[in-house]
Amino acid sequence: MSESARPRIGIIGTGAIGGYYGLMLARAGFEVHFLLRSEYAVVAREGLRVRHAQLGELHLPKVNAWQDAAQMPACDWLLVGAKTTSNGELAPLLAQVAAPGAKVVLLQNGLGVEDALRPLLPDSLHLLGGLCFICAHREAPGVVVHQSQGVCNLGYHSGPALDDERQALLEQGVAWLREAGIESSVIADLNQARWQKLVWNIPYNGVAVLLGSSTRPLMSNADSRALLQALMQEVVDAALACGGSLPDNYPQKLLAYTERMPDYLPSMYHDFVQRRAAELPAIYAAPLAAAELAGVDMPRVRMLYQALSFLQAAGRQ
Amino acid sequence: MSESARPRIGIIGTGAIGGYYGLMLARAGFEVHFLLRSEYAVVAREGLRVRHAQLGELHLPKVNAWQDAAQMPACDWLLVGAKTTSNGELAPLLAQVAAPGAKVVLLQNGLGVEDALRPLLPDSLHLLGGLCFICAHREAPGVVVHQSQGVCNLGYHSGPALDDERQALLEQGVAWLREAGIESSVIADLNQARWQKLVWNIPYNGVAVLLGSSTRPLMSNADSRALLQALMQEVVDAALACGGSLPDNYPQKLLAYTERMPDYLPSMYHDFVQRRAAELPAIYAAPLAAAELAGVDMPRVRMLYQALSFLQAAGRQ
Repeated sequence: MSESARPRIGIIGTGAIGGYYGLMLARAGFEVHFLLRSEYAVVAREGLRVRHAQLGELHLPKVNAWQDAAQMPACDWLLVGAKTTSNGELAPLLAQVAAPGAKVVLLQNGLGVEDALRPLLPDSLHLLGGLCFICAHREAPGVVVHQSQGVCNLGYHSGPALDDERQALLEQGVAWLREAGIESSVIADLNQARWQKLVWNIPYNGVAVLLGSSTRPLMSNADSRALLQALMQEVVDAALACGGSLPDNYPQKLLAYTERMPDYLPSMYHDFVQRRAAELPAIYAAPLAAAELAGVDMPRVRMLYQALSFLQAAGRQ
Repeated sequence: MSESARPRIGIIGTGAIGGYYGLMLARAGFEVHFLLRSEYAVVAREGLRVRHAQLGELHLPKVNAWQDAAQMPACDWLLVGAKTTSNGELAPLLAQVAAPGAKVVLLQNGLGVEDALRPLLPDSLHLLGGLCFICAHREAPGVVVHQSQGVCNLGYHSGPALDDERQALLEQGVAWLREAGIESSVIADLNQARWQKLVWNIPYNGVAVLLGSSTRPLMSNADSRALLQALMQEVVDAALACGGSLPDNYPQKLLAYTERMPDYLPSMYHDFVQRRAAELPAIYAAPLAAAELAGVDMPRVRMLYQALSFLQAAGRQ
């Protein structure tokens, strides 16, 4: 298959993220296959729905739904919407579903997620990061509520593409996403982009869990707002020390950006309420370790991580 | 009344602390008067009870209970067990109940509580700090559960006593407390002693609220234990910068001390659960301000204070 022919797309993990982007691609005419577990029966029977903030209710009545990766047709692009905590067990399954030279795109938050998955994948596969800026959550099996945004930017991590081929590969991916109405652009430096995204994710995810609150009340209280800003500043300092650059006054910009967002409960809040494993390793432990290697202390971030670790352990008992 | 004659004692605020020390003094034969508000009727009818960890159930069936400070006989020593948050409104009442030259003893946690109350009291009154090391809580109106300890150390803050009279005054108070079976000693430097006590109170009170946990689970989880130790170290550094000295390896000692304690829910936990005003100004804001003046940052303590402030404001809504 040439790079310009439309690819066959596999969605691995059909939660809010996988469901949203998969449905958007499918309704634009792409051939999209969804791998599902607990939601398979409902989605096979009733299809997928996205309650879209701008487009209204979107329904994909007939879904290429699969319960078993071994049965799926080989896919050229695999969009991984599963949580980072399951990447280890996903690896053999990704190798199974991948067409020769397939692109595996991790639509996940956190640092080092590609580094951790890479050794578990065949060398012939391209590994990309897909950084999603979207407020969405899964309301029920097969039902995603989209609150705002929907960006998905692509960056190359590793694989068989030579340096000059990588840009073309990314531009092709971006073009296809745009065909599906998804805002997208090429990420030049994936590590930098992951750090930049963490400047939002580290404060808001953990503080929402710890204080049991969505973004609006956290932004309108002077104390929690100051805390969020202080956490952001620690991540900014660590990101700069780890070699990345960031927009000027980035914490102020993110605070203003969050104020324009609808009231939002970050995904980690839902993870804790539903007692699912939270993405503490990718969102907290990995950035803390990287910052420490660069000689930077993040005392508030570490405190947040310690508090969340306690709560997660306590919730398991 | 000479200093050696037994004093008439007034207990202002008969919660766990006031109830415990007041009952211990009364059962040793001191004349003790209790000022009560919501619990007046129950205590006047049924007396006071302390379920004492070592001594079993102690019952004071006939209590000198008062609802109105104006009716109380003038007292030589006033032990203030009310919360620091009500000190402002207590001040005129203390002046009313005080015998000439009375000693007002603040059995309260936090920094600067005497400084804040002093301008509101007549110059003729002695103002002391009473630092209590005790695990106790109020179980029901007039019922205090004592879990362990019961120390009450006395330090002079301000008042008409000359330097050389202060020591004698404190030794007299200590002697009376000891007569009532209360472990007590003289505090040479009240500011230092308050800082030293905060090394325990700042971490355990706030973390218990934030993580919804008593001391045992917090001590047996590696993450929360490390967090408590890091918070302690910040308070130690601030205390040293603010001119006090502390025992060597004080955080390690306090961790070991807490491990020997029964499982305990600090008072601030109860304040939050019962939506009472928590002592955030005395336990967090004042030490943070003092440390800042001394050029010391306490990032984790400030984060804890910000988180608690948010939770308190959210609880009010």
